[in-house]
Amino acid sequence: MSKGFLLVVSGPSGCGKGTICKELLRRNKDLIFSVSATTRKPRIGEVDGKNYFFIDKEKFDSMVARGEFLEYANVHNNSYGTPKKFVIDNIGKGEIVLLEIDVQGALQIKSVYPEAVFIFILPPSMEELKNRIIKRGTETKKDIDIRLKNALKELKFVDEYDYFVINDKVSDAVENIEAIITAERLKVKRHKNLLKKINIQEG
Amino acid sequence: MSKGFLLVVSGPSGCGKGTICKELLRRNKDLIFSVSATTRKPRIGEVDGKNYFFIDKEKFDSMVARGEFLEYANVHNNSYGTPKKFVIDNIGKGEIVLLEIDVQGALQIKSVYPEAVFIFILPPSMEELKNRIIKRGTETKKDIDIRLKNALKELKFVDEYDYFVINDKVSDAVENIEAIITAERLKVKRHKNLLKKINIQEG
Repeated sequence: MSKGFLLVVSGPSGCGKGTICKELLRRNKDLIFSVSATTRKPRIGEVDGKNYFFIDKEKFDSMVARGEFLEYANVHNNSYGTPKKFVIDNIGKGEIVLLEIDVQGALQIKSVYPEAVFIFILPPSMEELKNRIIKRGTETKKDIDIRLKNALKELKFVDEYDYFVINDKVSDAVENIEAIITAERLKVKRHKNLLKKINIQEG
Repeated sequence: MSKGFLLVVSGPSGCGKGTICKELLRRNKDLIFSVSATTRKPRIGEVDGKNYFFIDKEKFDSMVARGEFLEYANVHNNSYGTPKKFVIDNIGKGEIVLLEIDVQGALQIKSVYPEAVFIFILPPSMEELKNRIIKRGTETKKDIDIRLKNALKELKFVDEYDYFVINDKVSDAVENIEAIITAERLKVKRHKNLLKKINIQEG
């Protein structure tokens, strides 16, 4: 049987990774979206186990203590984490688990789980990245400058990743990621008893 | 600038690697076919530097002595080899060089040039492999048995390769190899100054 893998799609804010992952999931129904755990309260319409695993702070902290997260972080007083079990169980079944995450999170995952496949989404240019951050609206010039500075810092971590995909056109970026998925599935190392697959007896 | 790479397409006789490479070259005009050197005399219509580099035995032996082949072999009293310079020069220019070769040759290349990308073409089944070998005609039952036995031996080296592609339908096999090429092109390690590419200043 073939082993699945964890596909980490990452990049700085404004690179468009959210849009890409949404389109990737729409086009590839067999991809499994990695559900994060969070201590934040569910918003209207959010479903436990689908959008997030909603857990309390005590449970979250005990999961951290037991090393049950591939990565975790605190944002605005709420905790978010990627449960290891969900990922490992699905990979064991031969599934491909898609995780959309910021650069800090991806680097955390790489340190504990380097066998994941890491894709860095690059903006087509710094100008375009700026435009995208501005388009999100409601932010002051100072906020925009901070975001841009952070993005520039984060872009330098591209060398830690396996693949890069330039997000010029979403459909092109998605097609490139689909090619990466196809190729990764064809890696010999992901298959045991490859010859049995084609009815050839080994030994 | 991005570095190209050597794409080694290999497998036992009867797996269909020749047909696949021909179709791959027809559909992808940017691939560069690796031209072998040989001491065999040119056949009618064969062009020096296109089909083969036709050289004499003395030249061939001196190239062997100077380590100028990625691999070489003797077949029916003629010598064949893959000149390193042709491959390295084209890779340096960012090109992808396609080499179709038997399993022995691929393993030789891997020992001296492991950074090449190795694809193993698998027949869909042992029965189909047998059919294909028989279809080539003119061979005795004994010849067929020897070929099958060799194929079975060679199939076991699939674990030494990076990727496998099952040749059930040629067009599917070619599409899979095209996905591998796309993915390999998107590998971060093949690109220097990736951020300069998108006009982002490093440092």
